[in-house]
Amino acid sequence: MGVIIGVDVGGTQIKLGLFSEEYALIKKWSCKTDLAESGRRIIPSAAEEIYRMLEENGIGREEVYGIGMGIPGPVDSEGYVRNCVNLHWNNFHVVREMKHFFPKAEIAAENDANAAAFGEYYRGAGRAFSSMMLVTLGTGVGGGIVLNGQILSGAHSIAGEIGHVTVYSDEESVCNCGNHGCVDQFASATGIVRYMKKLLAGTEADSMLRGLGKMTAKEICEAADKGDGLAVKCLDKCLGALGIGLGYFSHAFDPEVYVIGGGVSNAGKIIIESIEKEYCRHIRLAEKGAVFCIAELGNDAGITGAALLAGQKDGRALWRKELFMTK
Amino acid sequence: MGVIIGVDVGGTQIKLGLFSEEYALIKKWSCKTDLAESGRRIIPSAAEEIYRMLEENGIGREEVYGIGMGIPGPVDSEGYVRNCVNLHWNNFHVVREMKHFFPKAEIAAENDANAAAFGEYYRGAGRAFSSMMLVTLGTGVGGGIVLNGQILSGAHSIAGEIGHVTVYSDEESVCNCGNHGCVDQFASATGIVRYMKKLLAGTEADSMLRGLGKMTAKEICEAADKGDGLAVKCLDKCLGALGIGLGYFSHAFDPEVYVIGGGVSNAGKIIIESIEKEYCRHIRLAEKGAVFCIAELGNDAGITGAALLAGQKDGRALWRKELFMTK
Repeated sequence: MGVIIGVDVGGTQIKLGLFSEEYALIKKWSCKTDLAESGRRIIPSAAEEIYRMLEENGIGREEVYGIGMGIPGPVDSEGYVRNCVNLHWNNFHVVREMKHFFPKAEIAAENDANAAAFGEYYRGAGRAFSSMMLVTLGTGVGGGIVLNGQILSGAHSIAGEIGHVTVYSDEESVCNCGNHGCVDQFASATGIVRYMKKLLAGTEADSMLRGLGKMTAKEICEAADKGDGLAVKCLDKCLGALGIGLGYFSHAFDPEVYVIGGGVSNAGKIIIESIEKEYCRHIRLAEKGAVFCIAELGNDAGITGAALLAGQKDGRALWRKELFMTK
Repeated sequence: MGVIIGVDVGGTQIKLGLFSEEYALIKKWSCKTDLAESGRRIIPSAAEEIYRMLEENGIGREEVYGIGMGIPGPVDSEGYVRNCVNLHWNNFHVVREMKHFFPKAEIAAENDANAAAFGEYYRGAGRAFSSMMLVTLGTGVGGGIVLNGQILSGAHSIAGEIGHVTVYSDEESVCNCGNHGCVDQFASATGIVRYMKKLLAGTEADSMLRGLGKMTAKEICEAADKGDGLAVKCLDKCLGALGIGLGYFSHAFDPEVYVIGGGVSNAGKIIIESIEKEYCRHIRLAEKGAVFCIAELGNDAGITGAALLAGQKDGRALWRKELFMTK
């Protein structure tokens, strides 16, 4: 029996998944990210975690067909990372490093948002579609694109970066990218809270959120779901920003489906409704635009996509070809 | 000797090109588009034109390897056109129609902007790049995308439709798509003239264009090139609209190069400068964004691309494979 390992390397923890050769998740676990020595401990510690898990499950190291890794930054097609702030990496060859520990396995590395998109595409909400974009709404807004079974990372590694598209040019506060009115300033969890506070401060209108010292995007979504007028207004503006941006994106590469993931997406239908309202206003050329749905794999999207990435090269399956067939 | 025919079917004229099997243009000519009988005369008359030209050049009909056609509207992958206003076509199978006249040849049909993009990609300004978008600035603004040797037309046939991306949300006049502030309202030849007139009417400032009853986008570009302040302001606003839109597009699919074609692009460098100014302000994530250059094939882009399209299927060359090698 062959197995495949998916690794989602984050700035605080590393998520790992042990998959069967059919990419069924057998076991998942995580460990802390060791940032010492300019991040040079990260890959060895991940490899030790894998060694340990294989031993516990009576699986030989030579049975590992492949290891795929999601990295929070740009990775080139050879697995080279010029710079990854979150992991303290500079000029680091992540594929070569992992190869030391598993010389016979296929090793792949990809940007983490792209890896998650790849997971949703083959195993999640994107299963039935041939072109898809995953948008993750968390602390920030991320994105990954898969077209005809292949990740589109772009010529300058910014494909799918919906977060820094300018949508409200009259916004005065500055985004961390230096522009004003980016999608990230509104549709992220941080952005939703920021805008709700602004709304509450700017009006005397009733709201169940008034008086709360601290509030979360989750609470705002719940309030909107219960019909709180101000919370609905907040989501319409904040997720409307994403709707406008995805309208632009449909005029660009026109995918079949947008899959919405990340913490904020747990609120479900209400999120999609607010996004679609503005999206539809911006897609006048097409009779109908893309389908919207909520991501299905949650926190497992990254490890699943990473494992799948180890099993193919340039769109050709390295084993179990039928699992990568055009859908 | 095999030959290939490229046909660019427009609403007023049909352009035709006779190509060698290396896709060198041997002869080009054109004829009027006959819109009688709901456009049912178009394909037979194009076929007759081809028969005549073959005879004149002593080439047998069986020597035609392929015929590619560019159509001013969406064409599906089977060559079916649901609706093409300019040609009066409804539920029309353009590939099947042409096949009657050349049963042994490979027949291909594609949207005309995509066909032109394909031409520039393999034979024009896109030669050195693997991902490209062609933007045509004419009466309207059009676009076509080629990624890794394949046209990206999108799930709803709106990929590359930069013209109807909203960039100036404060614009009050309505675009023909129903929205306000689309790229098309500014960066098209029509849009440039419209905006220049608005500028002239709104100020007393000096301009060499003042007092002209009628003016063209070409004259405005020439005035800007000579340093006319108001004309420069006009181009900065109008082509700036395109720069903003292409900034969005880079965050979407992030191509290596934008090739600018169409009548307005004849003005050359001054066009690129005005586009790049705004583009760069909107691409803060990347160290540097896409390259910009002027199209090289002019009016031949359509017939060249159409001919090339007849020579490949799903990215695989049908003959002379080396001419389609990944660049």
